[in-house]
Parts: sequence; C-alpha cells; structure tokens
Amino acid sequence: MEKFPVTEKTEITRLPKRGVYDKEQVYGILDEALFCTVAFVRNGEPFQIPTGFCRIGNTIYLHGSVGSQYMRELATGIPVCISVMLADALVLARSAFHHSVNYRSVVAFSHGRKVDNKEELYKSLEVFTNKMCPGRWDDVRQPTEGEWKATMVLAFDLEEASAKVRTGPPKDDEEDYDLNIWAGLQPLKTERLPVQADPALKAGIAVPSYLK
Amino acid sequence: MEKFPVTEKTEITRLPKRGVYDKEQVYGILDEALFCTVAFVRNGEPFQIPTGFCRIGNTIYLHGSVGSQYMRELATGIPVCISVMLADALVLARSAFHHSVNYRSVVAFSHGRKVDNKEELYKSLEVFTNKMCPGRWDDVRQPTEGEWKATMVLAFDLEEASAKVRTGPPKDDEEDYDLNIWAGLQPLKTERLPVQADPALKAGIAVPSYLK
Repeated sequence: MEKFPVTEKTEITRLPKRGVYDKEQVYGILDEALFCTVAFVRNGEPFQIPTGFCRIGNTIYLHGSVGSQYMRELATGIPVCISVMLADALVLARSAFHHSVNYRSVVAFSHGRKVDNKEELYKSLEVFTNKMCPGRWDDVRQPTEGEWKATMVLAFDLEEASAKVRTGPPKDDEEDYDLNIWAGLQPLKTERLPVQADPALKAGIAVPSYLK
Repeated sequence: MEKFPVTEKTEITRLPKRGVYDKEQVYGILDEALFCTVAFVRNGEPFQIPTGFCRIGNTIYLHGSVGSQYMRELATGIPVCISVMLADALVLARSAFHHSVNYRSVVAFSHGRKVDNKEELYKSLEVFTNKMCPGRWDDVRQPTEGEWKATMVLAFDLEEASAKVRTGPPKDDEEDYDLNIWAGLQPLKTERLPVQADPALKAGIAVPSYLK
C-alpha cells in the first residue's frame, strides 16, 4: 500500500485519525469527484476556481481555453493547492455540538506544467471526457487541429497530498444517549438523472446505450 | 436589484455573458450550496479547506474548533477567497470540444473576523444547523457553556463577489448539427436519501417529521 509522505502541508493535525495518506484511497476520491477547486496566489492574495478535472496515475489534468487568464497563470508553474470533497451524509447527533458530516476530501499540492506532448494531450482529454460521461469519447466528433490549438491542458503531478475521511454514526457525549432525541445519518448522493435531448437534435437519433 | 461592484478580482473575463453580479442571485447560490472551499495564503503558498458554511445577509459564517490551526489563522483577518459550485448538468455536445457543464458558481473575497458577540454567535449556529437540516436546531440539545467556548465562529463579510452561470442546451458548430450524434443534457442532482437511525438510538424514538 503505497502512501504519500506526511508533510507539514498535508499532515491532518485536527482529528488526526481521519487522515488518509494511502495513494489508492486518495486516487479513488479524486476519480469519484467530477469537480475540484484550484487555489493559487495572485498579487499576494488567494484566488480559486472550481473546475472539472481528471486523474491519470499520479497526475491531475485540467483543461481550458488558451485565452483563459488563470490557465496562463498556472502554466507558469506557480504553486497550486487542489481540493475535492465528496459529501456522503449529514451526521445528526443528539447535541447541536456533535453534528457533523460524513465526507471524503482530498487536499493536494503541486505546480502546473503545460502539456505539449500530443499523446499526453489526447489521452488526458479522452480520460476527462469519459470520466464525465463514460463511453462518450468514441461517440463524438473528435477535435480538429484548430480546436486542439485553442485548448490548453495543464498537468499537476501530486507532490504532496492527503485525504480526510469521516464515516459512521454520530458520536454523542455518553450522557446524551439517553435523551429522547432522534439521531442518525441523512445520506447525500449526487445522482445522474435521465438525459434530456437537445431541442435541436436531428430527428431519428436514439439515446446511446451508455447514457441509458 | 442590488449588485456587487465589478472589480478586477471579480470580473468574469472569460465568457463574460456568464457573469452574474446580482446580490440576490449570488446569495441564492450560496444558500443552496451546503459546502464551500476557503482558500488563503500560508507561507506565501496557496492553501484551501472544504467546509460547511451558512450565509446571513451579506456575511458568510464558518465554524470550527478553537483548536483548529486554520481557523486561528483566518481569525487574524488575512485575505480569503471562498468559492462554491453547484453542478446542474453535463452538457453533451456533438463535438468533444463543445462539451461543457451547466453550473452555478460563486467566487468571493473577504477577510475574517472572530465572532464574539453572543447573539451573532448563537444565530449563526442556528442558521447553519437549520441550513444543513431544516428544523433540526429546535429539536436537539443546545450547546453548553463549555461547548460554546470550544467553538470558534468566523464571519466573512462579502467584500467582492461574483457568480458564473451556464444554462441551456449544448452549443455546437453550425455544421455539426447535421451529424448523427446524440446531444443533450445529463442533469445532476444532490439528493437527500432516507435517513438511517443511529444503531445506538434509544428505543421508541420516531423519525421527526422534518426528516421524512
């Protein structure tokens, strides 16, 4: 079980037993999350952007327009912090104080590099598209030379990373378990609802099997 | 319709028609999102934390332990960037290039202040608890003096903020509408699933009506 090193930046100091450094667990959380936020420093102050992403090996990929200001900033290799969070349940304790959330989050640190290698560029967009919608890449019109030129892909090797995970029922103070207050979990889940055809869809095109 | 001023930090420069500065719209997105990420600068580098929050008026409230390192850092009033994102649908275009996401995001800038006023402290925890679980606050054991002392609440007045919103069907290149490729939306929704009782729940306590 390969682990990320515990560093000053990634050590979970608050509730340390929730800390996870196992790479496969960190990767699993990253693969389940469709969106991340990327934080960086601009003019000495914090800035962040929510965005889609994908992971291949130990690397996170973002893509955007070559005209995007923040993509160009990140391409210079400044330090970034990337986080994702999956909320699994609201933890409803007997006391207001012990209310909590069951969640799986990752906080990672890296420096971006612009992807110029065509194979890596192509692969990252394929993995990204199929992460958002498994099976989609092979079904759509592939990018033209001009579209590739308009797209910037940035790679972020995970230099330092850790996850934080809470699971299980509420933990109340011993004397509160006798109170006449309901306690438990309210699970949360991001659902994919049935697809809605584009009003401009050409007649006679069925919903692909991978979307059913 | 009161608006946030468009500033260098909050102007949507990439796809400006997606920019929203109307305060009520920004507040609506903040109220629907259960979680945000808070970014700040530590030792010159970016750092961020996903966390729950609530909004009252033009102020975002976070709470945590008085022992939390980042809460203590933020209490000093350093600049923060707070973001939320609601993902409404995957936008499945005919071309890989025009794939997108329907989303509503907010990026806001502020400086924290520690809440010492008891009325504001109490109100923020009540609003926070009822945001996570409407009706919960009046049903649970209220905080003791010791619990209040262990809790830190930080207030962030929204000094600069903007939202970015995409809605509607895919937008493909004119010539692609004739391709035999299915296009449309896959809506995403965060669902609250049926509650699960704590295995340690005292016998005879029914699920409260606000959780059904």
